[in-house]
Amino acid sequence: MDESLMRPIWHDEVSDRVKVIDQRKLPHHFEILELATVDDAIYAIKAMVVRGAPLIGATGAYAVFVALKNAGDAAAEDAFIRREAERIKAARPTAVNLAWAVDRSINRVTAQSDGSARIRAARDEAAEIAEEEVQNCQAIGRYGLALIEPIAGRKSGAPVNILTHCNAGSLACIAYGTATAPIYEAFKKGIDIHVWVDETRPLNQGARLTAWELGRQGVPHTVIVDNAGGHLMQHGLVDMVIVGTDRTTYTGDVANKIGTYLKALAAKDNDIPFYVALPSSTFDWTIQDGVADIPIETRDPDEVRYMPGFKGEPGYLLMPETSPAGNYAFDVTPARLVTAFITERGICEANETDIRRLFPER
Amino acid sequence: MDESLMRPIWHDEVSDRVKVIDQRKLPHHFEILELATVDDAIYAIKAMVVRGAPLIGATGAYAVFVALKNAGDAAAEDAFIRREAERIKAARPTAVNLAWAVDRSINRVTAQSDGSARIRAARDEAAEIAEEEVQNCQAIGRYGLALIEPIAGRKSGAPVNILTHCNAGSLACIAYGTATAPIYEAFKKGIDIHVWVDETRPLNQGARLTAWELGRQGVPHTVIVDNAGGHLMQHGLVDMVIVGTDRTTYTGDVANKIGTYLKALAAKDNDIPFYVALPSSTFDWTIQDGVADIPIETRDPDEVRYMPGFKGEPGYLLMPETSPAGNYAFDVTPARLVTAFITERGICEANETDIRRLFPER
Repeated sequence: MDESLMRPIWHDEVSDRVKVIDQRKLPHHFEILELATVDDAIYAIKAMVVRGAPLIGATGAYAVFVALKNAGDAAAEDAFIRREAERIKAARPTAVNLAWAVDRSINRVTAQSDGSARIRAARDEAAEIAEEEVQNCQAIGRYGLALIEPIAGRKSGAPVNILTHCNAGSLACIAYGTATAPIYEAFKKGIDIHVWVDETRPLNQGARLTAWELGRQGVPHTVIVDNAGGHLMQHGLVDMVIVGTDRTTYTGDVANKIGTYLKALAAKDNDIPFYVALPSSTFDWTIQDGVADIPIETRDPDEVRYMPGFKGEPGYLLMPETSPAGNYAFDVTPARLVTAFITERGICEANETDIRRLFPER
Repeated sequence: MDESLMRPIWHDEVSDRVKVIDQRKLPHHFEILELATVDDAIYAIKAMVVRGAPLIGATGAYAVFVALKNAGDAAAEDAFIRREAERIKAARPTAVNLAWAVDRSINRVTAQSDGSARIRAARDEAAEIAEEEVQNCQAIGRYGLALIEPIAGRKSGAPVNILTHCNAGSLACIAYGTATAPIYEAFKKGIDIHVWVDETRPLNQGARLTAWELGRQGVPHTVIVDNAGGHLMQHGLVDMVIVGTDRTTYTGDVANKIGTYLKALAAKDNDIPFYVALPSSTFDWTIQDGVADIPIETRDPDEVRYMPGFKGEPGYLLMPETSPAGNYAFDVTPARLVTAFITERGICEANETDIRRLFPER
């Protein structure tokens, strides 16, 4: 397994620039974009050049750095910094990591008064956030491995089948991923593992990104349409589900890519464990009722109407020209459907008491 | 509403030929194919030029007619007819209507001994099967309307939101459709109705066909990805679900397009009625346990790997070239998740007793 293949965002020391993989172009084109301005970073988040809760957070923190670096004298003005922070935080509404990372950066930056000290503080904070997420993912991998090993033992040599939805992989995080970290860890240990990759319409993060990164690391996988998971579970072809999340309430409700809820229902109906892997930065400590209160982003219907990557191009229109489409980006899986969370501090059940046991400082 | 726009198969009196709409090309191209030989008909069924349980049945019956018409002296030979019948019945495994219609035709044909009488018998039987299905759909529409009207009453003017999966419309039947018949009936009566159309990956029968036929009749609708239905149900945006079926056991288990089971789970979880509309020809009176025993067709993985209609064309590849895909065509929704069946004889619950109440002769 090659960690150097994993990073979707980095600060280039030589040019002092922030660079990202353009995830809209994968798997067929590998292109790198530079986030030269705050608007570049906001565009990258909105247009899903970068996506995935931890990566959106890191990008937000790097956007603060870019804002200060380009600000000249304004870098010393709190009002300017806070205005830019609000613009960055508004880029996407559902992932809580974005506001979390930007606020964390702003706190550190505004503790300095000098403009160039602020620039350095923002750069260091972004790098630290990114590194912490890598370490979080590695810890999630180790804790998740402990859930896979007994299944592998029971199956005595037959592959452990894990279903995942969307991409909560290294491309969504900084390395290893959240949902994929236990998979990579098990694969590294030589456990015979096979991943069912949900295509994840409309933007196909599963078919385009998860399949790509698993393939690059040599992990056996099969892409399926989002409709197929229930059938596979009914027929004993799924041993466990692991997904990521964009925001999880302190009561255990899980916002994740649209369609996650349907897989959680099917897992419950077939007694298959349904795990959610997340770093603590993805917990929302303010919202109690996720279904009612987590804001669900609606996006451009043309993302549904056209083949992913070809929005607005007539030859790729998937429905009649006159048919409208709806595009809801996330859904919320109620805590009652979640077997457990895999966090960087260990495993906990999807209820407030057990979550607070792991995070007592909250 | 225009019934003349509806028929996906017909016998052309002038040329004495069987013609079908090529449903692979919709919605962007309207093309008509002639079923000149049995192999044409088998290909049309296998390749999904025609699809949908009642239409597959009618096509099977017309295929018997085509076989006899082309057979010359062999039309009088029972062995020949039975061999052709087996070939036709093997074209697709899941829809029970195919075997039902072919057997019905063979019974009538073999009651004649003269070749040309047999040809006429096969033609008449196919036409009768098609007409019966139209009448079945109309009856289903009337019974289904009675389920929509009270919801419309409760919503006092706000649109009744109906979610459907795949295409159980006029294109799947001969006119009106099964799942769509109550929708058309309600629309005709001036009930404010809105249909959530599941895209239905991998072949997008919802986005391509249901959206097309609803649009043609002026019925308001919105296409959504298959992942979205659960979220809509959680938020009160779905009043009822109506789907078709390819085979339903006498115990009430429902085989239908892959993904139906996931919507049934979500409907149950949100207390939303989940109806299955079907003519009696779709009941399987021999299978007790649908999940265990209904054969589920697996199809070419390239139907999943490429944009619908562009199988094998590199510019339309949806995933890495090296990633394998799985393609399961149907799933089975257990009877416990079905609120009721809408049949041509009325409404019944999804259990053996109530099904047999409507069909005592079975």
